[in-house]
Amino acid sequence: MIRVGVIGYGYWGPNIVRNLNSLGCAKVVTVCDRRESALARAKQAYPGVTVTQDEAEVLNSPEIDAVAVITPVWTHYDLAEQALNNGKHVFVEKPFTSTAEQGERLVELAERKGLTIMVDHTFLFTGAVRKIKQLVDEDALGQLYYYDSMRVNLGLFQHDVNVLWDLAPHDLAIMDYVIGMEAEAVVATGAGHLNGHADVAFMTIYFPNNVIAHLNVNWLSPVKVRTTLLGGEKKMLVWNDLEADEKLKIYDRGVKLQTTENVYEALVSYRSGDMWSPKVEATEALKLELGYFAECIEKGERPFNDGLAGLRVVKMLEAAEGSLKRRGEVVYA
Amino acid sequence: MIRVGVIGYGYWGPNIVRNLNSLGCAKVVTVCDRRESALARAKQAYPGVTVTQDEAEVLNSPEIDAVAVITPVWTHYDLAEQALNNGKHVFVEKPFTSTAEQGERLVELAERKGLTIMVDHTFLFTGAVRKIKQLVDEDALGQLYYYDSMRVNLGLFQHDVNVLWDLAPHDLAIMDYVIGMEAEAVVATGAGHLNGHADVAFMTIYFPNNVIAHLNVNWLSPVKVRTTLLGGEKKMLVWNDLEADEKLKIYDRGVKLQTTENVYEALVSYRSGDMWSPKVEATEALKLELGYFAECIEKGERPFNDGLAGLRVVKMLEAAEGSLKRRGEVVYA
Amino acid sequence: MIRVGVIGYGYWGPNIVRNLNSLGCAKVVTVCDRRESALARAKQAYPGVTVTQDEAEVLNSPEIDAVAVITPVWTHYDLAEQALNNGKHVFVEKPFTSTAEQGERLVELAERKGLTIMVDHTFLFTGAVRKIKQLVDEDALGQLYYYDSMRVNLGLFQHDVNVLWDLAPHDLAIMDYVIGMEAEAVVATGAGHLNGHADVAFMTIYFPNNVIAHLNVNWLSPVKVRTTLLGGEKKMLVWNDLEADEKLKIYDRGVKLQTTENVYEALVSYRSGDMWSPKVEATEALKLELGYFAECIEKGERPFNDGLAGLRVVKMLEAAEGSLKRRGEVVYA
Amino acid sequence: MIRVGVIGYGYWGPNIVRNLNSLGCAKVVTVCDRRESALARAKQAYPGVTVTQDEAEVLNSPEIDAVAVITPVWTHYDLAEQALNNGKHVFVEKPFTSTAEQGERLVELAERKGLTIMVDHTFLFTGAVRKIKQLVDEDALGQLYYYDSMRVNLGLFQHDVNVLWDLAPHDLAIMDYVIGMEAEAVVATGAGHLNGHADVAFMTIYFPNNVIAHLNVNWLSPVKVRTTLLGGEKKMLVWNDLEADEKLKIYDRGVKLQTTENVYEALVSYRSGDMWSPKVEATEALKLELGYFAECIEKGERPFNDGLAGLRVVKMLEAAEGSLKRRGEVVYA
Repeated sequence: MIRVGVIGYGYWGPNIVRNLNSLGCAKVVTVCDRRESALARAKQAYPGVTVTQDEAEVLNSPEIDAVAVITPVWTHYDLAEQALNNGKHVFVEKPFTSTAEQGERLVELAERKGLTIMVDHTFLFTGAVRKIKQLVDEDALGQLYYYDSMRVNLGLFQHDVNVLWDLAPHDLAIMDYVIGMEAEAVVATGAGHLNGHADVAFMTIYFPNNVIAHLNVNWLSPVKVRTTLLGGEKKMLVWNDLEADEKLKIYDRGVKLQTTENVYEALVSYRSGDMWSPKVEATEALKLELGYFAECIEKGERPFNDGLAGLRVVKMLEAAEGSLKRRGEVVYA
Repeated sequence: MIRVGVIGYGYWGPNIVRNLNSLGCAKVVTVCDRRESALARAKQAYPGVTVTQDEAEVLNSPEIDAVAVITPVWTHYDLAEQALNNGKHVFVEKPFTSTAEQGERLVELAERKGLTIMVDHTFLFTGAVRKIKQLVDEDALGQLYYYDSMRVNLGLFQHDVNVLWDLAPHDLAIMDYVIGMEAEAVVATGAGHLNGHADVAFMTIYFPNNVIAHLNVNWLSPVKVRTTLLGGEKKMLVWNDLEADEKLKIYDRGVKLQTTENVYEALVSYRSGDMWSPKVEATEALKLELGYFAECIEKGERPFNDGLAGLRVVKMLEAAEGSLKRRGEVVYA
Repeated sequence: MIRVGVIGYGYWGPNIVRNLNSLGCAKVVTVCDRRESALARAKQAYPGVTVTQDEAEVLNSPEIDAVAVITPVWTHYDLAEQALNNGKHVFVEKPFTSTAEQGERLVELAERKGLTIMVDHTFLFTGAVRKIKQLVDEDALGQLYYYDSMRVNLGLFQHDVNVLWDLAPHDLAIMDYVIGMEAEAVVATGAGHLNGHADVAFMTIYFPNNVIAHLNVNWLSPVKVRTTLLGGEKKMLVWNDLEADEKLKIYDRGVKLQTTENVYEALVSYRSGDMWSPKVEATEALKLELGYFAECIEKGERPFNDGLAGLRVVKMLEAAEGSLKRRGEVVYA
Repeated sequence: MIRVGVIGYGYWGPNIVRNLNSLGCAKVVTVCDRRESALARAKQAYPGVTVTQDEAEVLNSPEIDAVAVITPVWTHYDLAEQALNNGKHVFVEKPFTSTAEQGERLVELAERKGLTIMVDHTFLFTGAVRKIKQLVDEDALGQLYYYDSMRVNLGLFQHDVNVLWDLAPHDLAIMDYVIGMEAEAVVATGAGHLNGHADVAFMTIYFPNNVIAHLNVNWLSPVKVRTTLLGGEKKMLVWNDLEADEKLKIYDRGVKLQTTENVYEALVSYRSGDMWSPKVEATEALKLELGYFAECIEKGERPFNDGLAGLRVVKMLEAAEGSLKRRGEVVYA
């Protein structure tokens, strides 16, 4: 039984606690939050849990094996570092850290201590992303051409981060997982219209092998859009996460260059065939992820969404933020 | 009666001829194309028209008042220059010219000769764009925040230009018309996967007053998308050009910054109200545009889609092409 | 404080208990269900509630002011009758009763005892239906022409009733409320393919003033559809209950007969204008309904979704069932 | 070369002439219409064709092998009868005739004369319907359960027929072709709100083997809908004819009865799997149909959309009209 302390019981914390307790192999023993009202909610829902406003009670407790850090990003490094130093595994809300340097230190520390870091890239455990990953791994799409995602809606504005740090981590984690290569370079543009932070931003990520990725994130859209296009040589895919039943559509469509002797006459031929929408499993992603966290701890295995994965996402965010400030200046990895 | 010679009778030329002849105040007297098959088609459809493979017969004819140049972009400058030098008004297919320098020369030449140049920005004459322009001019949306357009589909690949020169002129002409300000700077990214030309590209245009525009153009998308978001302080708008009946949706939604004494507590408030989809007129845009061309010639008035408008679009394309080659390096106007 | 006993704690019962307890002016004191597992769930969620397998403990308790009957329809009459005879107000799950005769007896009994019956026509309390009712009452649609609803999906099959009794009560209650007239005649058709009960059924209801209503209910549809068209002389309305944001669309479209001297040349003219999608309130309908139940009891007022409303729906269901068995034979009210 | 005379050059006639002339094996020699303006249009488009206001010139001409009757339904019988009596094959616009009796006479006459009748059930030649027919013939859907079609829009009102005779023939011809059985009984309901003819109508058709079909046709709908559901034991299908690219969706979904010893506990199990959207050929249906007409004449083969097919549709319409007038009274075949 893995005994877990959860720091941060705002919007996402209750989901962490509920799912951890439902696993069977883990148990939340302490919930920590600075706000008394949050602790009252926790106590009402889980009368047996210890609550505290002092994170040291979680970080130092000999009764706790793992700490879930579900707090604002600027607190992640300190909390995770203390937890690791006290021999505890950590589960960290995304984005992993505020800077790549912090992320590197945590990765190095966990490595040295032989402890598990998992970064909460929940989307990697959804049926849709697991199916996309499977298709790419099976080479069903062929050589990848591009990954293009749009994630826009009205709000929620954050006070401490811009729209890139708020919305892009989802897509960056997914593309990191699906594409499986490290970014070569990042370009970002954007603008802020209200409180100084960018509220509209666009990000291009250059990967090896001519794979290009693009994100469109926006807090000022009148409509909610969650759509990703993934183009490959053999097949192309549309993932609309707002569809209730047909989230994934795989198109047997493609383009091929017909080489001819006369290079000026090179022809492009189109292929247009059936569309197929696989059934996507509806299991709760967070429960799967936390079960995998417990399993990695027990078996001493390194999760694929480990500190390095979190670090790769933070590096792209850091690069994007620098690029955005300098109006699209490319930032190389 | 304005007598028109049409050079180029491929895909778009027949629409130009048909609409010119339907105006009443204009008449196509000569059709020119290098391909005999094209001339045969023209002759069958319009037995009374003169056909020729030699553009000089159009450019030099004293029987012709205006020339419509409906040929590949790299031929526009030479044909238009000769026409203007021979005292003829010109209607030029978009994009206006291959380079900004060419465009500037044509604008200057027309000005000197007192002749009309119109660039075929057909979309400006659709019911949807005219309604958007009206809403912006009436300040119905309030201070503009962003213009974000997605124009993707499978093919058609061009041999001589990349996807930016093929698809972006539509959106650039529209945003130039709607936003009504000259771009400050352009950033573009993209990649080519088949024949060396970029087939996926993303473009950010910085306008004054913190207005940001973004284009997503792609020849490799399995699905066709033609959607533009336009965000303003008061209202926001979605234009889906593939909708048969409800192309425009105007949302009474917005975000407002609540200034407080403590700047760290500045609050953002959301407003969410009704949606309204105005009836959009279905008149054929090209007919309206060509009627306007005839009217501008007759009255000696300068069209809003004149050579300068065409030039502004070409400048943005030229800037984007340079930026794309240097991976997003910002190009200032 | 109204003290309520809830009989039936299956799928819907927990929602009733949760919403009653959230009102402030009511309190669930006893939960009754034949299944021990259901009672265990109730006890866990509400430690202070009394649970019992014996409905008499609810029906006879002097501590209980009102009884919510959330059980299969064939039990409604007996339970509601006993509750009324014991001086208790009743809230009855829809459909009200198995037969119109039962419904009439309950209505008469409640009248005699001066007690409140409310039938759980939850949909009448949704933002969408309240907005439709408001539009009809304001005569925004003009003279009504038709009401046409489609409510289809895959399952859930019921053992004891056919698809009409399962799905049609929603639409019948809504049309009864919105149209505000009593049906003249009913025609129903359908077929059963699995267990003897009709799983696909179609129902036409003739109202006075040439208003016609139609329902399409189906347990064997691969896709879920919840769409209602409402046509009037002035405006027409589409209600798509599966849309997250734009459930209601009101079309400024219509048809008008141009009377001419020659009756054979009577012309029909079409009007096509804007579409408007009003913001629909997202309050939980069941909470509003139960609050209204409490209010009606306290003020001694008759709810609009009273026993008579429930009875009108049951009469239409009974008529439809008879018609369906005799392949569409019309049944007059 | 089959020489064809076309009677009726209003909305549909020009499509018939254009497609016949494009076949290569047929040629329109005469066009007949009562309206001079129609003949002027025909003459302009086809200078070589003979035009006449007198149908006898078509019906009696020894230069004509086949007659296309593209006129209002009440004229079909007389024109087709004369054509057949004069030894000409006939292609008749749908619906075939105004009454079943007329249809029977024409079928009998063509049979006696050894001539071909084809009824213009164009939809049977679309890619979508041919794919549906193929799937049903291959038993891909399994035992059919139901066919449910919605065909609604605003207008166009007809002066001489009601909405059933205007819109239902499409669906009746398709279901006749796909289901491949003769209807047992028909029930129809509806109402008219403007000029006395029903403008909203609903039709149920009972087929053998418990297959039920249903049509919803409406001239007063604010939105255009063209959707058909087809449910079978193994798979279910949705055909949305307004979709540009994904007209057909085939769902691997179904319901199965689990027989148990205790009949009261019979369980229904659901199956939910992938969805598949086959590419549908985009060939012009009318050209395919007219080519098939020419082929049947040349080979002396009986088309599947022959007079008997047309007659089956007319019988269903006649039955529906009678049923509608008597408020749903079932009419047996």
